[in-house]
Amino acid sequence: MNSLTAQLKHKIDNKTKPLGALGTLEDIALKVGTIQNTLSPVLKNPTIIVFAGDHGLVDEGVSPYPKAVTQQMVFNFLNEGAAINVFCKLNNIKLLVADAGIDAEFDESLPLIHAKIGKGTKNILNQPAMSSDECIKAIATGSEIVFQQHEKGCNIIGFGEMGIGNTSSASLLMSKFCNLPIEKCVGRGTGLDDEGLTRKVSILKQAIEKHPDALIPTEILSTFGGFEIVMMTGAMLKAAELGMVLMIDGFIATSAVLSAYHFNKHILNNCIFCHQSDEQGHKLMLDYLNVKPLINLNLRLGEGTGAAVAYPIIKAAVSFLNEMASFESAGVSKA
Amino acid sequence: MNSLTAQLKHKIDNKTKPLGALGTLEDIALKVGTIQNTLSPVLKNPTIIVFAGDHGLVDEGVSPYPKAVTQQMVFNFLNEGAAINVFCKLNNIKLLVADAGIDAEFDESLPLIHAKIGKGTKNILNQPAMSSDECIKAIATGSEIVFQQHEKGCNIIGFGEMGIGNTSSASLLMSKFCNLPIEKCVGRGTGLDDEGLTRKVSILKQAIEKHPDALIPTEILSTFGGFEIVMMTGAMLKAAELGMVLMIDGFIATSAVLSAYHFNKHILNNCIFCHQSDEQGHKLMLDYLNVKPLINLNLRLGEGTGAAVAYPIIKAAVSFLNEMASFESAGVSKA
Repeated sequence: MNSLTAQLKHKIDNKTKPLGALGTLEDIALKVGTIQNTLSPVLKNPTIIVFAGDHGLVDEGVSPYPKAVTQQMVFNFLNEGAAINVFCKLNNIKLLVADAGIDAEFDESLPLIHAKIGKGTKNILNQPAMSSDECIKAIATGSEIVFQQHEKGCNIIGFGEMGIGNTSSASLLMSKFCNLPIEKCVGRGTGLDDEGLTRKVSILKQAIEKHPDALIPTEILSTFGGFEIVMMTGAMLKAAELGMVLMIDGFIATSAVLSAYHFNKHILNNCIFCHQSDEQGHKLMLDYLNVKPLINLNLRLGEGTGAAVAYPIIKAAVSFLNEMASFESAGVSKA
Repeated sequence: MNSLTAQLKHKIDNKTKPLGALGTLEDIALKVGTIQNTLSPVLKNPTIIVFAGDHGLVDEGVSPYPKAVTQQMVFNFLNEGAAINVFCKLNNIKLLVADAGIDAEFDESLPLIHAKIGKGTKNILNQPAMSSDECIKAIATGSEIVFQQHEKGCNIIGFGEMGIGNTSSASLLMSKFCNLPIEKCVGRGTGLDDEGLTRKVSILKQAIEKHPDALIPTEILSTFGGFEIVMMTGAMLKAAELGMVLMIDGFIATSAVLSAYHFNKHILNNCIFCHQSDEQGHKLMLDYLNVKPLINLNLRLGEGTGAAVAYPIIKAAVSFLNEMASFESAGVSKA
């Protein structure tokens, strides 16, 4: 045990509570202290970025929603009407929306991060989702977006997404990166019925079979990824490199962690997995990474909502570490 | 389905999200709307009351901590050094501390709710914990305390406790009210080792055998209860009667719900079970009541900390119900 870890444990254990009685909050306090390399961590300018993109595979009918909903939801974000707007406002989290690759034009005056790599990915049944160049550009752009926020003083960042069809892309990435049969990786997404689910599995099987040569991380990402997922991957890698705390949302965001993990395994040291999604497959992803999520409220919305809802728990962990009295300072007898 | 329920469900289902995608938050929104009989619920003056009391049974060695810690922790609360202080301050919850029956004198000038029924309960191995009169007085006092807060505009109230030895009392109440063998109801409390646990089980078995005639709720409460648990029971019954939202903490607070439930089963309509304690037995209590807790962070501290940490989740539920756009208002296509 290194010295900081030992000192953090000592500080936690001397708070006026039975040993270990704050459970997971103690783990989070230790983690945030370790990330920030201090006994007195501070959460500054919490920010959630929603990366949005469209998916060519939607043409095959993998989602019950039309592709236009991605654009419509972006306007809903800008008008502060979506769940993520409400939760960020409630918990004093700054919310940014990035057009990573939506199949629509947005006026430059709109308060978006204009980072479009392409107008939606290609239909994976016919060709890779994006070119290698696009994939690299998306990673670099995500990196740059996070760098900007870090420059503005943010040290805790959450990752959300919006993109009709993106559970399909996440399932494909999961299947490749975790080496699991696609059936185990596919769920109902935004609400497919049994017939829709069967169809989705069949389409994703075809997609896997179409691209047997996608083996290394960048190939897997460019073949099966979405612009929002790849950009999130780059964003996550940069955030970890900068020593930030990463708040990971649900199924799609965790597929980006899986991707980032294959570039740099140490990224997990900076990640707090905020919630377990109701989407089948998320639990298997979390098991693969050997991590436990903070909460399980059966959310399956994306947008970063799980991170926004869990953020007060991370604050509680940091607050007890900084503000609770010790046995000595409070004059309380130990066991 | 009555009209309000149908209208609440309609409002929830028309928010810009897939059907059911906010999971448990939707259940909580429905519950709070139903309790407040409105489509637009509001959480006013959130308050947590920590009821503190001492237990005669501590003389037998059921806790690794000395009885004096109850008083010491009350001073810690007054000095804002305990976990519950930190979490209440963080989440803008008003915190009150009631001396329900601590074995110590407190100067009247201290900002406590001075509601002492007695200087600790009696040792249950020798006699009932309290007299019938004391039990009734504790229930009435709890009721009055909540009435006062309701008069001040509070409509959501959490229940915490402090009392060295009170997991023993809670286990005994659980055994009687759930009709379960005492072994299933006893845990390590603040941190007993194996030997201590065996001793605790043995002592509680003797306590049960000593009082075979405690059968009806008031007898069970006066025989095995603690002043803080009985006062909490009265407080909970009044809060439900007044149509407040009740935030239930862990093992001890749930033992008070169990007690209240045997006076009025409808109390569950008003309760939000905030977390599942790490104390063995709490899950069985929750199963008995057929309820699911919001979070499970392996907390086992009491004081109302689980309620304070979970409160932002309840706020998130109420906020999405009031503030999210509908498909119509946002111009988003449905599935």
